[in-house]
Amino acid sequence: MDIITILENKKQRRALTREEIRFFVRGAADLSIPDYQLSALLMAIRLNGMDARETADLTMAMAESGDMLRPDISGIPVDKHSTGGVGDTTTLVLAPLVAACGGKVLKMSGRGLGHTGGTLDKLESIPGMKVSLPEDEFISIVDRIGCAVVSQSAQLAPADKRLYALRDVTATVDSIPLIVSSILSKKFASGAQAIVLDVKAGSGALMPSLEASKELARAMVEIGHHAGRRIVAVVSGMEEPLGSHVGNALEVKEAIDILAGRAQGPLKHVSLFLGAQMLIASQVANTQEEALALLNGALDSGRGLEKLKQMISAQGGDSRVCDDLSLLPKAPLIRPVLAKEDGFLSHVNGTALGLAAQRMGAGRVRKEDRIDPAVGFVMEKRIGDFVKAGDALCMLHARNEESAKEAEEKILSALSFAKEPAPRAKLLYALVTPDGVTDLP
Amino acid sequence: MDIITILENKKQRRALTREEIRFFVRGAADLSIPDYQLSALLMAIRLNGMDARETADLTMAMAESGDMLRPDISGIPVDKHSTGGVGDTTTLVLAPLVAACGGKVLKMSGRGLGHTGGTLDKLESIPGMKVSLPEDEFISIVDRIGCAVVSQSAQLAPADKRLYALRDVTATVDSIPLIVSSILSKKFASGAQAIVLDVKAGSGALMPSLEASKELARAMVEIGHHAGRRIVAVVSGMEEPLGSHVGNALEVKEAIDILAGRAQGPLKHVSLFLGAQMLIASQVANTQEEALALLNGALDSGRGLEKLKQMISAQGGDSRVCDDLSLLPKAPLIRPVLAKEDGFLSHVNGTALGLAAQRMGAGRVRKEDRIDPAVGFVMEKRIGDFVKAGDALCMLHARNEESAKEAEEKILSALSFAKEPAPRAKLLYALVTPDGVTDLP
Repeated sequence: MDIITILENKKQRRALTREEIRFFVRGAADLSIPDYQLSALLMAIRLNGMDARETADLTMAMAESGDMLRPDISGIPVDKHSTGGVGDTTTLVLAPLVAACGGKVLKMSGRGLGHTGGTLDKLESIPGMKVSLPEDEFISIVDRIGCAVVSQSAQLAPADKRLYALRDVTATVDSIPLIVSSILSKKFASGAQAIVLDVKAGSGALMPSLEASKELARAMVEIGHHAGRRIVAVVSGMEEPLGSHVGNALEVKEAIDILAGRAQGPLKHVSLFLGAQMLIASQVANTQEEALALLNGALDSGRGLEKLKQMISAQGGDSRVCDDLSLLPKAPLIRPVLAKEDGFLSHVNGTALGLAAQRMGAGRVRKEDRIDPAVGFVMEKRIGDFVKAGDALCMLHARNEESAKEAEEKILSALSFAKEPAPRAKLLYALVTPDGVTDLP
Repeated sequence: MDIITILENKKQRRALTREEIRFFVRGAADLSIPDYQLSALLMAIRLNGMDARETADLTMAMAESGDMLRPDISGIPVDKHSTGGVGDTTTLVLAPLVAACGGKVLKMSGRGLGHTGGTLDKLESIPGMKVSLPEDEFISIVDRIGCAVVSQSAQLAPADKRLYALRDVTATVDSIPLIVSSILSKKFASGAQAIVLDVKAGSGALMPSLEASKELARAMVEIGHHAGRRIVAVVSGMEEPLGSHVGNALEVKEAIDILAGRAQGPLKHVSLFLGAQMLIASQVANTQEEALALLNGALDSGRGLEKLKQMISAQGGDSRVCDDLSLLPKAPLIRPVLAKEDGFLSHVNGTALGLAAQRMGAGRVRKEDRIDPAVGFVMEKRIGDFVKAGDALCMLHARNEESAKEAEEKILSALSFAKEPAPRAKLLYALVTPDGVTDLP
């Protein structure tokens, strides 16, 4: 077996055998196949595709390219994965809530890159918080407290690390078999038995259309189901930032505000819906109504916020931030961006907003860049809102006036206004289970 | 401009602009774009294609990635290029003949790789022969004698060198825009004003079918014509080795035998046809009849062989080999491969024969391998010949018995026999000019 023959086969649109797939995944993990051959293969897969059997084989081969955890946890370990968004802090809201209801949330997260934020970066804005924990400590926290959020260990799915880095620089990110295998191989290797996927649709999402997002969701549910996992996917909207807060400490603040019962809105709504799927998938609840009732109970009683404090303490962080938001990093300059004219907010370029935050220092341009945890902005208006000239569109939290000015320009050009009322952006499009796709009202 | 956008565009099947093409060719030449991005782009071009304008832009950008020679030669400098064959020594026959008729043959050649032989390796089996000459010395020999055959200088089309090496290891050789630009960029840079292309069709050829070979020929003639070159292409057969001799010194011997009037057959026939096109393209002759008469005159009078002697001497070689073949390297073991049964030779796997010679030592498996100039074999039968059990199918020239045994097995399994007479393999399929394609009788 050799990589040239594998390249030739995929180039000729032939399905690769399980042995061929295992060969190149092993070669990606042990570095025996050079970058230039892997990247040509990634482009051939992007353009000529893979069928369901190939995608399943690729996913399993990548999962098995490193350690396969078998966590000793009472209950069904559940994970949630989002394909990436702006102002999307569902993990920080739902992980403590699900844990407070008796779920076991085994969450390995990523860092932000490009216009999307990363849960690990957000957590690190809490003083003392550690996200790199030894596997046994991580599992022990999940078992004891019910949730932990850590970075993926280097021993899990090493083939994915190499292929993911190459996809990012060869325009081969938007391939369903490559996305499916990248996401699910890590979940399979981490030992999650129940998996809830949040697949974004809309401007700034990974896939170019709602139909493509549904197709991606279907493909992942199928592969996960065949691998014996309890898996569902939610297709959710990303026409504008999900929460109003964009930036690391700002998003932690918004999650605490929701858990403390001080904030409502789309982030809470979507977090509860995803959390309900997690409770059902981990067999803590049987129906959506039951699951939502449990979650609302945890929220109203303050047990959710209490769980977040426990998790922060267990991971070395200062849990007093949950009661005293002034302990979070604060930007020196806080000022509004004002509307220039009257109109209905009709369209938001989510990617542009994410890039504006990145440019302020909330994200990285290169992997080695340092994050500024304090900066970002808080949106004051959502799509469909009427805005008068002089109204605050958002509140900037900037390092200095120069950065604020640049962000203001970028944010203003990311927003479109119309004379006529624009419809609100849809939050939840569809629920995908192994039985099929159900469109949501 | 950046390479990710260029990758994205070609992935989406969009035509690249001239500026985008110049950007990535410059990046290939100056090493600013890494291998993994170039190889992903090569696969995207292989799968999504390039139109005629893109191919022309790619060819010119590659030609201009290094020196552009403007050779000071009286007459129209003419080059010939073959897409690669087995036992295909036309250059050694036609270069001296064309020069003897007054043509100026400016020939930059390559080395053998894989199953195909390389003219430079063949020439180096002549004692003392140098194929790496400074540009001014090369041009002075062509001007003075009428022909020289040298290796391509590193200063010509450096982008092609990098892309060619990557294509070889990423299964992206068989792409018309990539083949066209690779071949023609070097010809444009070397200063050839007239170009005759020999595009092979048949088993072991670059393109999978006669139609694909014609399409490649048409594409090259179109691009060359638009670039102001006098260009034609011949589509010729490669169902079996063109000459009977396969191996470096053996092929030099066959070329000398033809120039000395001792040998006839397909190699001579095709060499004269290609030589005639060269004389017409360089305006030495007006018609094919006139050109063939000139070439036959040079052959019969011995002026062709005399020209080969002059060229060998000018390039530092021992020209006495032309009168005394025993001065060429000789293999220690010469023995026949015998037919096992009666039958008509019906099919020859040319690639397998080339690989058998390579394995004997006549070719390289890796670029750094050393060639054994003496080894190879001489076919005694052609497709359509009747063979009796015990007849010699070919004569092996081997380094030792072990190598001979291995070659015997490979050669026997490359030949197929039939009970019914098989038709002779066609030698010349079509002549392609800027005016169109003419099928040859």
